[in-house]
Amino acid sequence: MRIALDAMGGDHGPVPNVAGALQALGTTPDLTVVLVGDRAQIEPLLATSPDYPADRIEIVHASQCIGMNEKPAEALRAKPDSSIGKCWQLLATKAVDGLVSAGNTGAVVAGGLFTRKFLKSVHRPGIATVMPTAKGRCVIMDVGANVFPKPRHLLEYGAMGSAFAKHMLGIDRPTIGLMNVGEEEGKGHDLVQETYTLFRNSSLADRFVGNIEGGDIHRGKVDVVVTDGFVGNVIIKLSQGLFEFVMGMVGKEILGALSAEKELAARTLQGMVQKYHYSAFGGAPLLGVDGVCIICHGSSKERAIANGLGVAAQDVRIGLNEKIVAELEALPAVTA
Amino acid sequence: MRIALDAMGGDHGPVPNVAGALQALGTTPDLTVVLVGDRAQIEPLLATSPDYPADRIEIVHASQCIGMNEKPAEALRAKPDSSIGKCWQLLATKAVDGLVSAGNTGAVVAGGLFTRKFLKSVHRPGIATVMPTAKGRCVIMDVGANVFPKPRHLLEYGAMGSAFAKHMLGIDRPTIGLMNVGEEEGKGHDLVQETYTLFRNSSLADRFVGNIEGGDIHRGKVDVVVTDGFVGNVIIKLSQGLFEFVMGMVGKEILGALSAEKELAARTLQGMVQKYHYSAFGGAPLLGVDGVCIICHGSSKERAIANGLGVAAQDVRIGLNEKIVAELEALPAVTA
Repeated sequence: MRIALDAMGGDHGPVPNVAGALQALGTTPDLTVVLVGDRAQIEPLLATSPDYPADRIEIVHASQCIGMNEKPAEALRAKPDSSIGKCWQLLATKAVDGLVSAGNTGAVVAGGLFTRKFLKSVHRPGIATVMPTAKGRCVIMDVGANVFPKPRHLLEYGAMGSAFAKHMLGIDRPTIGLMNVGEEEGKGHDLVQETYTLFRNSSLADRFVGNIEGGDIHRGKVDVVVTDGFVGNVIIKLSQGLFEFVMGMVGKEILGALSAEKELAARTLQGMVQKYHYSAFGGAPLLGVDGVCIICHGSSKERAIANGLGVAAQDVRIGLNEKIVAELEALPAVTA
Repeated sequence: MRIALDAMGGDHGPVPNVAGALQALGTTPDLTVVLVGDRAQIEPLLATSPDYPADRIEIVHASQCIGMNEKPAEALRAKPDSSIGKCWQLLATKAVDGLVSAGNTGAVVAGGLFTRKFLKSVHRPGIATVMPTAKGRCVIMDVGANVFPKPRHLLEYGAMGSAFAKHMLGIDRPTIGLMNVGEEEGKGHDLVQETYTLFRNSSLADRFVGNIEGGDIHRGKVDVVVTDGFVGNVIIKLSQGLFEFVMGMVGKEILGALSAEKELAARTLQGMVQKYHYSAFGGAPLLGVDGVCIICHGSSKERAIANGLGVAAQDVRIGLNEKIVAELEALPAVTA
């Protein structure tokens, strides 16, 4: 399979992207990576790894690059030859099966909205993210593509997140919860109240456990957390910041208290930080587009890029989009 | 000063409430507690502590109690003699200076909205909560009173949270951040975009740092985090759940790895859990009402109730509400 990688995306430019591509090629034999970006910067990086598999790596030149803080829609229009825009063109023309980018998340999402190649029955794509919980892992959707969704979008996120949890995380019958401020029906604002009713009357009703609260996520109460992109974005960034804060405090207190076993404790904590770092989770898929799109963290290094390519390859291999379409087609028709 | 305590509130009924009241009376000499609830249940509990200061404790009988899962507005109407309703009556008639409840949060807030005794210039009260950060503490407002606010409400939360941070946390010139999905102006939905503009053109402009993201909270980027009650509620519950999850994982991994210093590490971790437990932070004030109202966690035990009473007493002692009014009066007038 062929995956386009935005070689210019992220805080660190082409270096970790090219290194991550080479790492992924080493572990994924059926993968071809199309590096999209400035050929003059990419070729010297490849040349430093003379034994790379040249038959499974290609370069598609893009003369422009969208900065991490540019306004997405404006930047895409102003830079028709951007690496992100070109990745989407490759996907839209089926020249690749998927794309991976650590670039400006808003621009990656906007690129998907502009091409308008959505899966059948999808009204708006959303970003899914995997989080560790006390019971294993859960999927949260949406985490930032759609900050003011309609109830129907959230219902579709439940269906898409459910297909992802089943086929990518191996959870047999994923349970779905709606993020709210309390468990009882009738809690929260109009959006969640209307969404609650939609779920209760849908083909997902038997997997829908109802409203959940913020504290339920990491306790592992459900397998799929449905929420709007504003709340979801706060959730993933807060989780990362709080994890760093707590681990920092623990490190200080534990290492300050211990003596003989200080080194052992430090190594153990370091192992935990590695295990729960976002780079271990392989990027976040933009689900609902026709093709595979994996969005990596802006600060991604080699390992995170390689994992993102690995996840993209797996999505293609198992035909995740066909599973999503099947799940969506079972939903009730949209009434005006 | 006189503080009413909802003696029936919380998951554990009158026992921790009465015990918490006695504990607070021991540490706060100028405090009188008015226990509001079922006299037949309260008196035997007092009788088990024969040396309590009888001149600083009173009972006001309330024959009804609102359950933790009842619908707030309906329950308040259906139960005119509820302990929560009676606490608000005492506050509205100035029979007490403040009230503390670990009962149904929605009902406590609704009681405040029903009495409609707001501070001058306040359009909607909101709940403030203190959170630990890498740099000290911050205030988050609102965390659940107002799940679909108007921009003006959020501006007022910034002013109220700022007065709270200054006078209760001792932060000289508190900085204010608006919770959003990205730092750049123009991010997010209409509510945050309009609120951003309001702040920029207000008397708070020089303390307003602009948009912040979820990861900035525990990094201590600002002293006051302004957000709607839906997002704020998710933030505090998520933080609590994630803290428990991480501390649980750390405990398992560290105690599994160590041998000689296992006990020492366990005691250190236990100390951290105590230090960062919500009961150490003394409840969350409903700011904007004329009088002091402290909302405690539903699972509060003696220590949390005593801390809630202590915070209420301090709010009264320093005249927090007068400081809030002064801050609000400096804001620009509301235009229709």
